[in-house]
Amino acid sequence: MQRKDSWLLPEGIEEVLPDEARHLEGLRGKLLALFSCWGYDLVDPPLIDFLDSLLTGSGHDLALQTFKLTDQLSGEMLGVRADMTPQVAKIDVHNLKHEWPTRLCYVGTILHTRGDPLEKTRSPMQIGAELYGHAGKESDEEVIRLMLEMLAMTGLQNVHLDLGHVGIYRALSKQAGLTDLQESELFDVLQRKAKPELHELMATYAIADDAKLMLMALLELNGGKDTLGKARLLLEKADDTVKHALADLESVAQAVAQRLPGLPISFDLSELRGYHYHTGIVFSAFVPTVGREIARGGRYDNIGAIFGRSRPATGFSADLKVLSALSKQSYQVEKRELIFAPYLQDAALNEKIRDLRAQQNAVVQQLPGQIGSPEQLGCTAILEQDNQHWVVRSLASATQ
Amino acid sequence: MQRKDSWLLPEGIEEVLPDEARHLEGLRGKLLALFSCWGYDLVDPPLIDFLDSLLTGSGHDLALQTFKLTDQLSGEMLGVRADMTPQVAKIDVHNLKHEWPTRLCYVGTILHTRGDPLEKTRSPMQIGAELYGHAGKESDEEVIRLMLEMLAMTGLQNVHLDLGHVGIYRALSKQAGLTDLQESELFDVLQRKAKPELHELMATYAIADDAKLMLMALLELNGGKDTLGKARLLLEKADDTVKHALADLESVAQAVAQRLPGLPISFDLSELRGYHYHTGIVFSAFVPTVGREIARGGRYDNIGAIFGRSRPATGFSADLKVLSALSKQSYQVEKRELIFAPYLQDAALNEKIRDLRAQQNAVVQQLPGQIGSPEQLGCTAILEQDNQHWVVRSLASATQ
Repeated sequence: MQRKDSWLLPEGIEEVLPDEARHLEGLRGKLLALFSCWGYDLVDPPLIDFLDSLLTGSGHDLALQTFKLTDQLSGEMLGVRADMTPQVAKIDVHNLKHEWPTRLCYVGTILHTRGDPLEKTRSPMQIGAELYGHAGKESDEEVIRLMLEMLAMTGLQNVHLDLGHVGIYRALSKQAGLTDLQESELFDVLQRKAKPELHELMATYAIADDAKLMLMALLELNGGKDTLGKARLLLEKADDTVKHALADLESVAQAVAQRLPGLPISFDLSELRGYHYHTGIVFSAFVPTVGREIARGGRYDNIGAIFGRSRPATGFSADLKVLSALSKQSYQVEKRELIFAPYLQDAALNEKIRDLRAQQNAVVQQLPGQIGSPEQLGCTAILEQDNQHWVVRSLASATQ
Repeated sequence: MQRKDSWLLPEGIEEVLPDEARHLEGLRGKLLALFSCWGYDLVDPPLIDFLDSLLTGSGHDLALQTFKLTDQLSGEMLGVRADMTPQVAKIDVHNLKHEWPTRLCYVGTILHTRGDPLEKTRSPMQIGAELYGHAGKESDEEVIRLMLEMLAMTGLQNVHLDLGHVGIYRALSKQAGLTDLQESELFDVLQRKAKPELHELMATYAIADDAKLMLMALLELNGGKDTLGKARLLLEKADDTVKHALADLESVAQAVAQRLPGLPISFDLSELRGYHYHTGIVFSAFVPTVGREIARGGRYDNIGAIFGRSRPATGFSADLKVLSALSKQSYQVEKRELIFAPYLQDAALNEKIRDLRAQQNAVVQQLPGQIGSPEQLGCTAILEQDNQHWVVRSLASATQ
């Protein structure tokens, strides 16, 4: 049966029309050029893959968000990628196989079966950069700075950086002797910042009081510069992993602040984003006008191990469509210059059109019997004959 | 169960690694800029859509090639696009709604459940341009010329143009009074150029001898310039539609030949490509080294009607990955310039790196304790201190 509304699109699925597409394409080019200038090589992972390859090392969230397909050729289950980060990690481990640091970047559409309650889309255009093969805080610093450069190039003002460290939660859970199930329950409650639930849940755990207090303290440990000092006091009885994590956080924050003195930086130790694959520092960028983070990333040192080789890794990603929409608010979108050419069998005209196009001017040629004036076609100038020469006359100036 | 070979990809699904991705991205940018210079506006249709929207107006071939998904939000069947042309036609009719000619272009990954026996891939990167709202042969000529410009910009030599006209087959079938089933059977046999089968099939049809001879003649009507003259003789008893179609073919061939005198042009009146949606002139481009066409297109005037408004349409598409691979054979791929910078806390160095990057130079910065020399990282130059200034020294010149 033919649907009545054959122009409707599924919820959260968009088509990008000319003005938006031109702006998006321009931004895409600028950001990929930026990544290239920082030594990040472009790769293009496949849109679909075997389901277990796509979900390897990721959590239940990603499995739920992944569209499944049956492969008619192999009979196996395929998935449409819902996150490109694990795909790029696989390329690092399996195709490039370098021992030294590898820097990769990517851009492409991903699909989510449900989307996020805060996202309006189910087809983000994921853009990101990843740095493999270096475990130190300097690589976290590099990708955070590159993420901030990306947002600056997008034209965003008042960007705010939020830092966290998944290793602190992991170490405290381990120290407390939480089971995997408990760790996962607690993770969920912390993610939702659900304080009453946290207290209820904690009451059911038979763990040492110190450990309990430290886990519960995480929810309080967010805010400005003094957060790390407060954390050192409240997490005093934690093991060295936690202390090193706090030191790394401070060091990265200082290094970033030194380069970008005006940048507001906050900390949030209960921020445990990412499809369960993060292992170290996590970070996100916010702007005041948007209710959720506009770019996010972190360290995920274990992901390569599942593909056969353990590599430290850190990186970030964003939705290029979101960046493009925000960028349109910041920049005045330029009107496209377009020259209208008449339809004539005239060698000089044809040559003029060819030359103009070769110099990157956009020229649209009339078609015999067509409807539509140059203005209706969106033209800003026309080609006309003047003293046996074809010249471009601006339509704007003619009306002045 | 974890697959043992978690790095294997499904058959016909590829990942694009750095060297190839850089080349592909460069070509993508050049071709989109070309389309823009001809007045074609970029659009980005959705990766998935309601299945009946995707398959509207197309044939059984496309339905077989389309991956199906269930939408968890609506419960409806979705498909992954297997062809972007109908999607772009839908944008013309439903979103832009111009009465005058509309020129659109697009690039994006499509998926095929099975691929084509001649294609090695199931995930082509379709790139193309479409011209809506003009029914005359001049718009066919425009898109053919643009397709040839695209191939020239790709660096391809010895391109060959093949022209056909689906309207001739349609008119002859109608004149012969073929049923839909017969028309479809015959279409299939002609597509495969299966001469013995054609004779067998024809023997079963109770149609006039003249009509039969004309339909059978189609298989002979391919070759150079003289093909159209031969067609006029063999199809003498056909109706005016056929005569107009032959005149249009000749006119388009002449117009293209006038602009591109060296271009080999051939005709093939049994060439009926396209997912059943073509209605007029069809065309394809070949190069000697590839066994199948590398770009293809044609007129498809009826497709918009199904979306609620009939618009004449003509356009072409190609697989950007195929073009990129061919282009790499034609052009010497340039080695990327990459500058290695040491890791130091040095304000002058940081400033130098920032300036170099701002001028579009690629600079990769060392990370403390990393493995890998500048050469292993693929660097072609290093930043070093000379008289208290940071200067770029080429690594190539140092070894000379």
